[in-house]
Amino acid sequence: MEISGSALIGQRSAQHDEHNVMGSSAFRAVNPVTGAPLEPAFMRTSAQDVALACELAAKAFDTYRETPLEQRAAFLERIAACVLNLGDTLVERCMAETGLPRARIEGERARTIGQLKMFADVVRRGEFLGLRIDPAQPQRTPAPRVDLRLRHIGLGPVAVFGASNFPLAFSVAGGDTAAALAAGCPVVAKAHPAHPGTSELVGRAIQQAVHDCALPDGTFSLVFDDSIGAGVALVENPHIKAVGFTGSRTGGVALMQLAARRSEPIPVYAEMSSINPVLLLPHALAARAEAIGQAFAAALTLGTGQFCTNPGLVLAIDGPDLQRFVDSAAAALGTQPATPMLTAGIHGAYLRGIERLRTQPGVEQAGMGADSSGACAHAGRAALFVTRAEVFAQQAALHEEVFGPASLVVRCPDAQTLHAIVERLEGQLTIALHLDDADHALARTLLPTLERRAGRVLVNGFGTGVEVGHAMVHGGPFPATSDGRSTSVGSLAITRFLRPVSYQDLPDALLPETLRAGNPAGLPRSVDGAPA
Amino acid sequence: MEISGSALIGQRSAQHDEHNVMGSSAFRAVNPVTGAPLEPAFMRTSAQDVALACELAAKAFDTYRETPLEQRAAFLERIAACVLNLGDTLVERCMAETGLPRARIEGERARTIGQLKMFADVVRRGEFLGLRIDPAQPQRTPAPRVDLRLRHIGLGPVAVFGASNFPLAFSVAGGDTAAALAAGCPVVAKAHPAHPGTSELVGRAIQQAVHDCALPDGTFSLVFDDSIGAGVALVENPHIKAVGFTGSRTGGVALMQLAARRSEPIPVYAEMSSINPVLLLPHALAARAEAIGQAFAAALTLGTGQFCTNPGLVLAIDGPDLQRFVDSAAAALGTQPATPMLTAGIHGAYLRGIERLRTQPGVEQAGMGADSSGACAHAGRAALFVTRAEVFAQQAALHEEVFGPASLVVRCPDAQTLHAIVERLEGQLTIALHLDDADHALARTLLPTLERRAGRVLVNGFGTGVEVGHAMVHGGPFPATSDGRSTSVGSLAITRFLRPVSYQDLPDALLPETLRAGNPAGLPRSVDGAPA
Repeated sequence: MEISGSALIGQRSAQHDEHNVMGSSAFRAVNPVTGAPLEPAFMRTSAQDVALACELAAKAFDTYRETPLEQRAAFLERIAACVLNLGDTLVERCMAETGLPRARIEGERARTIGQLKMFADVVRRGEFLGLRIDPAQPQRTPAPRVDLRLRHIGLGPVAVFGASNFPLAFSVAGGDTAAALAAGCPVVAKAHPAHPGTSELVGRAIQQAVHDCALPDGTFSLVFDDSIGAGVALVENPHIKAVGFTGSRTGGVALMQLAARRSEPIPVYAEMSSINPVLLLPHALAARAEAIGQAFAAALTLGTGQFCTNPGLVLAIDGPDLQRFVDSAAAALGTQPATPMLTAGIHGAYLRGIERLRTQPGVEQAGMGADSSGACAHAGRAALFVTRAEVFAQQAALHEEVFGPASLVVRCPDAQTLHAIVERLEGQLTIALHLDDADHALARTLLPTLERRAGRVLVNGFGTGVEVGHAMVHGGPFPATSDGRSTSVGSLAITRFLRPVSYQDLPDALLPETLRAGNPAGLPRSVDGAPA
Repeated sequence: MEISGSALIGQRSAQHDEHNVMGSSAFRAVNPVTGAPLEPAFMRTSAQDVALACELAAKAFDTYRETPLEQRAAFLERIAACVLNLGDTLVERCMAETGLPRARIEGERARTIGQLKMFADVVRRGEFLGLRIDPAQPQRTPAPRVDLRLRHIGLGPVAVFGASNFPLAFSVAGGDTAAALAAGCPVVAKAHPAHPGTSELVGRAIQQAVHDCALPDGTFSLVFDDSIGAGVALVENPHIKAVGFTGSRTGGVALMQLAARRSEPIPVYAEMSSINPVLLLPHALAARAEAIGQAFAAALTLGTGQFCTNPGLVLAIDGPDLQRFVDSAAAALGTQPATPMLTAGIHGAYLRGIERLRTQPGVEQAGMGADSSGACAHAGRAALFVTRAEVFAQQAALHEEVFGPASLVVRCPDAQTLHAIVERLEGQLTIALHLDDADHALARTLLPTLERRAGRVLVNGFGTGVEVGHAMVHGGPFPATSDGRSTSVGSLAITRFLRPVSYQDLPDALLPETLRAGNPAGLPRSVDGAPA
């Protein structure tokens, strides 16, 4: 499949203006390993085309949201098949645009396809509709009870912003798109400018699936921009009713503010910033400091540390066991070759971030990755820093995420100080505990705080490797996300794009099929609050 | 029970400073029927006491949210009993502060108690916890699957603002308080200044229930202010994690903006502004215009029109049948005596609202309530206006809520115009359809629009009389509410105060009881996405 460099507006490609391709309204992806620009040029989608995509989505909404569940599930599966059909064209373009290795891209593709299939199952089950019936009670006194029936419908067209660090699983056909389409919402996706070719290929796969399933044109569109114009136009467009975003805190907060200033404010689901504290409890540290240090170094450098769940902070009680952990982690990091970061911008921010840590009074560098000379220009070299609890407590800058393979170990004088530090942290995606049986008492005192501070609490592991399932929460209090009531990974994500509607005393013939007498759709429903 | 005029800060009363009672930091309720101030004076709660209430709530949270479900349910029932135990003291104070008749107050008390009991049932059932388990798969390839378990926990302390128009059911022990306490969230309530005595009495009932159930002090507090100081301090307090509000659009939007500007933005559930369109379809109008007109007049004047679901807009195709409806409604309104409005402020705003309609070019007055001379100073006299579709479409002011017994009939030249008007309306709490069998085809074309525009669609009735049940949605797109993903009435309201937390690979002994192996709590759980 040829990459055209044009937006996909429903079933059409946007006009590709050859004059503009030469001029300032086009951009190209860059291979982060070689630094070379990649053809073709991508047109920055015009404000008119963004508006057209939103209008088509609004027109598609009433039809798309009433598709029979089987048809909607088949559509999600068809997207999965069409993405797979792109074959090596997709894998190679994605490798070229991200510098990520083949195994990672193929694994991420499997994850993306798995997500789509999981949502197809969720759609078929129909529990997400939350069907509830309170039958009429004409004889009730003092007043008869009306007949009330409730279902959930989609919020409306959703704007999905692709993430830099997951070119497939959190991008054009990623979790937000899958959840929104499953919920019955058309999607207008904005490609991340670091991987526009990957985005177009995947977008064309969705476009093909829309066509194959005979769905309305506006069910899906894809726009491009390497600046903020198209994204702002999307979030401000009155047809857009929710936003999904994965990226920086600055970007996410800007979208939250834009959405809050609309004449009709809309929900923004932004997954932004987390340092994912790792708490090393004393008995675990005594028993296996070295092993934990090695595992930590592997987790820290996985994917050049470019995961939202990267372990950016380690908290433990100071002493020889903690020193063993630091030494072990530093030794392991020292053997890790630097690997390419996703973009020059990300690499530059990473260098500034570790420089900020390195020059902070009271912070010492304890380890770093292997010499990166000879590696590509944008290779990220791991960095491990150590500080004391009182320094950490006083320096807000040390609480900020450094996106990449950097982490900070905080030596705490005692368990109380450790607890107090966690209590004062901002919201997190994950908090990990390393513990042995003898640490349970301490863990039990910490858990209420951990639950308040994070969307996921995990034991004897690291937050990287986010399982796609029904019991996953990839979310957490601000600033981990804009909305801690939700998750961006797993089947529960469908709820973010739904709203309840109640029908009172509607004749059966006018009710949605899912709420009619006799349950012709055969879906799970509750009656008077109990499963029917 | 004596009314003290002091805030309830946990189990204490705030210091009542006699000097200040005399001065500017106190206010009194006013009997809207007589205009006479009511004793005692209420102290405006100081910023320090607001902060103390929030701090106590934060301290109570970890304990309160882990109360066994049976204990939490019993607490809700104990609140209901304590409110009922207030007996006529409550009813009479409430009548004096609101001008509402005894039957209405007693009915609202029954509703309030019913809500608390419904949430007790919801808590016992435990479905609201949304328990999900994805068991470990150590043999899975290429990577073993971790053990993931998910539950929902409370968001944290919730600020609840009492509403003027429901002194019991949407105030101190109203729907938001019941839902928040059921979800495991401590509550800091702000009394509506129009009924502070009612609020204190109900607050003391909750305080008593907290004591009787041996719950932490900070589970509940109540603050007073007749200006914005205490409310702003509450919403800005970092311990507060969500806000529930029922009131004006201006007030609700101000709270939304305050909450969005916090360094940690929090959700605001504001139920604000709705004109609750009533669509009269042709065959129903032909068959029974007079009867619908009479029922409409009764719904419009119920409670002096001071309901969020009051029918403020009627849309129908112009012709003799519509004229019969207007004549019938006007005649019925003409026999309706004016009844007291809740406050002088609400009455003044109502007078300005109907004056705005009366003086709008292209709008005619078609009916009004009986002469109110001799009634109390703040009596609200019903008013019915008529205009044409093109006037309505051009005048945004005609789309605004006039809180009180006023409504506007829009004569549409045809069904298409009617549909186009509904399509351009802002979000609504309810939209009502009056229809006969022969109207089904038209109704079917309208329904997709109605679902997008309102939280509840109802047939052959009016939105007033909001049933408290499992299938009720009292919500809707902005500006009906700040967050159309939610409801403020009914059992589904518990979800607004919850967030999901996931536990990965926790030893059984560290898991919450509800998620442990063997399901010792005996609650409904799903395993791998299917009911276990």
